[in-house]
Amino acid sequence: MSESLKVFGNPQAIYYEGREARAMLENARKSVADLIQATPDEIYFTSSGTEGNNLALKGIALGYKDKGNHIITSPIEHISVLASLASLKKMGFVVSFLPVDKYGMIDPEAVRKMIRKETILISVQHANNEIGTIQPIAEIAKIAQENNIAFHSDAVASCGNLPIDVKELGVNALTIAAQGFYGPKGVGALYLKRGLRFSPLIEGGNQEKGIRAGTENLLGIIGMGKAAEIAKREMEIRGQKIRPLSERIIRELPKIIENTYLTGHPTERLFGHSSFCIEFIEGEALLLFLDDEGIAAASGSACTSRTLQASHVLLAIGIEHALAQGSLIFTLGKDNTEADVDYLLEKLPPIVQRLREMSPLYAKYLRGKPR
Amino acid sequence: MSESLKVFGNPQAIYYEGREARAMLENARKSVADLIQATPDEIYFTSSGTEGNNLALKGIALGYKDKGNHIITSPIEHISVLASLASLKKMGFVVSFLPVDKYGMIDPEAVRKMIRKETILISVQHANNEIGTIQPIAEIAKIAQENNIAFHSDAVASCGNLPIDVKELGVNALTIAAQGFYGPKGVGALYLKRGLRFSPLIEGGNQEKGIRAGTENLLGIIGMGKAAEIAKREMEIRGQKIRPLSERIIRELPKIIENTYLTGHPTERLFGHSSFCIEFIEGEALLLFLDDEGIAAASGSACTSRTLQASHVLLAIGIEHALAQGSLIFTLGKDNTEADVDYLLEKLPPIVQRLREMSPLYAKYLRGKPR
Repeated sequence: MSESLKVFGNPQAIYYEGREARAMLENARKSVADLIQATPDEIYFTSSGTEGNNLALKGIALGYKDKGNHIITSPIEHISVLASLASLKKMGFVVSFLPVDKYGMIDPEAVRKMIRKETILISVQHANNEIGTIQPIAEIAKIAQENNIAFHSDAVASCGNLPIDVKELGVNALTIAAQGFYGPKGVGALYLKRGLRFSPLIEGGNQEKGIRAGTENLLGIIGMGKAAEIAKREMEIRGQKIRPLSERIIRELPKIIENTYLTGHPTERLFGHSSFCIEFIEGEALLLFLDDEGIAAASGSACTSRTLQASHVLLAIGIEHALAQGSLIFTLGKDNTEADVDYLLEKLPPIVQRLREMSPLYAKYLRGKPR
Repeated sequence: MSESLKVFGNPQAIYYEGREARAMLENARKSVADLIQATPDEIYFTSSGTEGNNLALKGIALGYKDKGNHIITSPIEHISVLASLASLKKMGFVVSFLPVDKYGMIDPEAVRKMIRKETILISVQHANNEIGTIQPIAEIAKIAQENNIAFHSDAVASCGNLPIDVKELGVNALTIAAQGFYGPKGVGALYLKRGLRFSPLIEGGNQEKGIRAGTENLLGIIGMGKAAEIAKREMEIRGQKIRPLSERIIRELPKIIENTYLTGHPTERLFGHSSFCIEFIEGEALLLFLDDEGIAAASGSACTSRTLQASHVLLAIGIEHALAQGSLIFTLGKDNTEADVDYLLEKLPPIVQRLREMSPLYAKYLRGKPR
């Protein structure tokens, strides 16, 4: 059997290549489980974080629909969570949104107050991909547990960045995606604690124990497993390297560009993540100018980059529509260096200045400014 | 930008790597569209044929639920179709199953007779993966069209084997998977004709025009596109090479092993596909002995290989439970040769003989046989 054929088996098949493919699949499952301190039988592979969130929310809500119809979440969840909940609302579920403070932080006590006897599911993200804020998941999970309510957390933005221990966090379900830790795009996993009642989304096959049918994306899954192994080993050292770089951006940028505001929590945030609103600027133009200089940034969510709506996250934390247009997000990775930050801090101010000079709002602001 | 980074962009992102990733994605979409004579804007990437079937059936049924609740299908569809329909039944849809003859063939006139004024969807597979039989899809589609009913066909078993022209077939929706034409596992596509009303399954993102949200499995999709290009170019020549090989197995096997019956249609079947029921034998044991000789075969469906139930397809075409246990499927591929067939025809009879010698049913049969 040639090397290239070795991964060509179907993990569900009985013959040699099938058994070997199955071993690779289970090996990857173990690596992913290890990354979040789960057991392999609690890991279900998916095709993305978006699928994981759809699967978790719809699967748990429909699994517990006999018990109640009330779901608690936050207004700053990923759109895949919000869209899934919108669909569930059409099916008769009721969704309550938790208040968030100006940093996007949720108060666990607000969760406690929102619980009703019909509440069957609470879903709060681990960290936000647009503003970097990390939520007090363990505290919220504890309240859910005390009330015997299933708790799901979307950890797509945090996995590979923060150490995750599903048992310490106390979640019943957790969504992750390989791209969060340098794995391939289009592959993810859902952690489901044993004993959870669940209704599948993609049916007709015994793969993933019937929770998620369909021939496995074996190459993607193997890649995810490998990336998980490396992430577990190197996460801490990556953090030590990257954290000071993003902290420098957070510290310096508002100093060198006036009317620039950090979004998200100043300290309780993902390492490598820095996000701002730059007044009198339109984010999309900024991204294009930065791209010309070889700098890849984001504005609002990458997933919504083709919509023309202001980010729901920024609006939810109280940022005005106009200011939200100037949203800018830098996510540093393991290969970024101090020199990259120097380069960014050198290139960004003149771009902002040039764009502001074209802005009628900025002209108006300057006229009104005391000399 | 290094070569390895080039495919690392998010196709939804605005910066350079994102735009380049998007170009690759759209290029793959064009190749897949070309394979089935569709236009690229009618192609939606999925994570498998199973997801495609779930998406098509649930998406169309929910899209047309205001118009009616009746769905027509066949009893020999892939389990992902049958499981999706079982879920739709729980939501209030009514499913009728078409009769099939002993070859698994559907009579288009039976479809016409089954149509009610509430019928909103007809789903019939293009070809069957267990018995190879090819259905008269164009005739069935014509009847659906005359009655203004959406028609879906599962072409996972036929794509890459039979030339497919969605316009000639007249389908509104068609499921394919890359593994059908030597592409990677865990990636597929759904063809949806423009104008179809549709409700998505995985929501929360603008990918695939909102029909199928989630970060794209870019590597898998690029692989599928490349495999589609090659399949389009080489399908005919592959067929010319493989067809005589499987025809030889179909001709010879019942001659050299007594009480062996071809399953599926003798001529209207996928090339490379041969399937049998071998009396007094248990398929699973046969597969293991064949595997020892380096021969990879299947019994029943690969997707159900971990269940202990007899194949629903074999039972639906009237094969008795006991005989169905001796199901054996050989799917020849582009790299198989005449020598492989020689080898199979040499190795299989003694294995069958050995297994039969252990069978009490065979002993009983021999005792009753006239000498």
